[in-house]
Amino acid sequence: MNFHTRKWIKPEDLNPNGSLFGGSLLKWIDEEAAIYAMCQLEAPRVVTKLISEINFVSSGKLGDIVEMGMTASEFGRTSITLKCEVRNKITKKAILTIDKMVFVNVNERSEPIPHGKSKIRKMDEKLENMG
Amino acid sequence: MNFHTRKWIKPEDLNPNGSLFGGSLLKWIDEEAAIYAMCQLEAPRVVTKLISEINFVSSGKLGDIVEMGMTASEFGRTSITLKCEVRNKITKKAILTIDKMVFVNVNERSEPIPHGKSKIRKMDEKLENMG
Amino acid sequence: MNFHTRKWIKPEDLNPNGSLFGGSLLKWIDEEAAIYAMCQLEAPRVVTKLISEINFVSSGKLGDIVEMGMTASEFGRTSITLKCEVRNKITKKAILTIDKMVFVNVNERSEPIPHGKSKIRKMDEKLENMG
Amino acid sequence: MNFHTRKWIKPEDLNPNGSLFGGSLLKWIDEEAAIYAMCQLEAPRVVTKLISEINFVSSGKLGDIVEMGMTASEFGRTSITLKCEVRNKITKKAILTIDKMVFVNVNERSEPIPHGKSKIRKMDEKLENMG
Amino acid sequence: MNFHTRKWIKPEDLNPNGSLFGGSLLKWIDEEAAIYAMCQLEAPRVVTKLISEINFVSSGKLGDIVEMGMTASEFGRTSITLKCEVRNKITKKAILTIDKMVFVNVNERSEPIPHGKSKIRKMDEKLENMG
Amino acid sequence: MNFHTRKWIKPEDLNPNGSLFGGSLLKWIDEEAAIYAMCQLEAPRVVTKLISEINFVSSGKLGDIVEMGMTASEFGRTSITLKCEVRNKITKKAILTIDKMVFVNVNERSEPIPHGKSKIRKMDEKLENMG
Repeated sequence: MNFHTRKWIKPEDLNPNGSLFGGSLLKWIDEEAAIYAMCQLEAPRVVTKLISEINFVSSGKLGDIVEMGMTASEFGRTSITLKCEVRNKITKKAILTIDKMVFVNVNERSEPIPHGKSKIRKMDEKLENMG
Repeated sequence: MNFHTRKWIKPEDLNPNGSLFGGSLLKWIDEEAAIYAMCQLEAPRVVTKLISEINFVSSGKLGDIVEMGMTASEFGRTSITLKCEVRNKITKKAILTIDKMVFVNVNERSEPIPHGKSKIRKMDEKLENMG
Repeated sequence: MNFHTRKWIKPEDLNPNGSLFGGSLLKWIDEEAAIYAMCQLEAPRVVTKLISEINFVSSGKLGDIVEMGMTASEFGRTSITLKCEVRNKITKKAILTIDKMVFVNVNERSEPIPHGKSKIRKMDEKLENMG
Repeated sequence: MNFHTRKWIKPEDLNPNGSLFGGSLLKWIDEEAAIYAMCQLEAPRVVTKLISEINFVSSGKLGDIVEMGMTASEFGRTSITLKCEVRNKITKKAILTIDKMVFVNVNERSEPIPHGKSKIRKMDEKLENMG
Repeated sequence: MNFHTRKWIKPEDLNPNGSLFGGSLLKWIDEEAAIYAMCQLEAPRVVTKLISEINFVSSGKLGDIVEMGMTASEFGRTSITLKCEVRNKITKKAILTIDKMVFVNVNERSEPIPHGKSKIRKMDEKLENMG
Repeated sequence: MNFHTRKWIKPEDLNPNGSLFGGSLLKWIDEEAAIYAMCQLEAPRVVTKLISEINFVSSGKLGDIVEMGMTASEFGRTSITLKCEVRNKITKKAILTIDKMVFVNVNERSEPIPHGKSKIRKMDEKLENMG
């Protein structure tokens, strides 16, 4: 699993109980997952189709640095399925896990179209990060 | 299912493809579901524990009015399970459905505590809306 | 008066004194009132023309659930006038009252056009909320 | 009337019809008016009590620069009343006028306290702006 | 140096350490500087080209009123260079200073075009503020 | 240089000319740089002290995926200096470069304290990204 985007939990991200607001976290993940899907499919237009089983394992708190990890678990003809984890960057403790996020590759009329991919693109990610 | 909160889709809610950004929608729902759970449990502190199976049925677009509906489907000892639907307020077409959102009633140390409820509170909702 | 949209007061909604920022509240109301006006007039394009006498009756605080109530008080030829109240959802204590919010029905060139309505549409609201 | 704060209308400030969202404008004004009241009263804690008669004279559009003007119209024992205008910075055309915004000077327990002022402080404003 | 726009530091503007988040401050300045450049050049389309030497002199805290001051320090053929200071409105203590912000006047294809200005426009600013 | 956090440019990030608003970009970078500095110094409290020479090389547009890269260029006794680049994730074209961002390690009273580091920590980054 590759961890790219990170966030620093600020007062604007908290719920009234003083911990990370789940809704903010879901918003961050949806953007990161869409980015990951577009990069894997080398396609500019993907839509979230289904999210299945989100577990809120522990809570984040003010000042925590969290990082979001994604990996592709399945390639369909027009779709891609991701597995996702958000964890504390320092302690590595999981905050949230998502079993499946399914994105569909679409054309300009929002109709599903084949993406022609069947495995994870890793190379450039590795090169970049080792440079 | 009771539909309370509504939103008017504005430019700030769109993804780059020009339709409603899924992440914004998830943020709205998480807030509305927490409110519904707190009202049902008459408790000030609930945390999202699990979300299971989110279906993005259709997309929202600029200027649409959407409304969010919730209903309690199950009462545990310390938890409550909701079913949720977001739909277009005018056409009634579903935009997103969530099978199960589980919230847990907690004390100030975030430990689960019994909530003592076992059925949906409806009365005041009805009275209010018919006034 | 029908109360639909609710909000959970989060840290991002507070002023530096730690209570609900009036400006945030006004932003929420303007959106809810526009939605109410569009639903009543069955029209997609309305503009706020005048707001008269806003009373800040009490203040909201972190963690409060507030709900916004609207009712149509007058139908003009091209306009509709609303009365509005924001209150604490649990205690029912008023936070803010607005005597008159006047919206005008306009065409694509922003010119006033008749809306053809003269009384409050209630039916579908009731059915929805009792289902 | 002194015009200080300006805003550049960006996509995030628009309503679905593509003009400046009234709610955003009200949020900007409430902040600017509170700042003006605190500066006039030389007091750190003021609360909005009443807003009377807001006229939406014309609409703002994407890319417009707007400026907000305030002037104190009346000093009470614990309150101050402002008159306000928002206009296009370039054309000077009014966008919104507010007849009266009443702020009350309060202590830490939110109780009204006398502010001891009876006229507009102008001097430092002038010096600053001519420097 | 003219100080126009002010901001009231609210919880949403804080970093996790409880002081003004530098990123929020930079966002405010960039907008104010663009407005100042557009007003000086009487041009609707300017782009930030270079920012040189930003000093964070002291920090802002919750409830502070800050004001942003700008002055043009140099006029190029297609560019304008600004000097900028953000300070506490009450104590006048500097929070941040920027030596040079260079904006370029561009046409609709984002190509630099001459602006024809060579000195600071002050008159209308003065008249406005003394009225 | 390591590229971690990415962003998908949405309508809310645009300036009125329809390209990425510089202020939003600066806000993103300041957060990412603070995260990078905290991770390198293994310290929870760092403050931005100086930013020197920001070049806006090209502009971002709606739908672009941008990524932010950081590297430590110098370790002082209480400070760390970063070099930063924001580029288009797909085309690798630079959008913005920053020569130096200086962060200072501070204690709870905001006084500079030694951080005891003198070289870049890379190991865990590599392992993570190759997994």
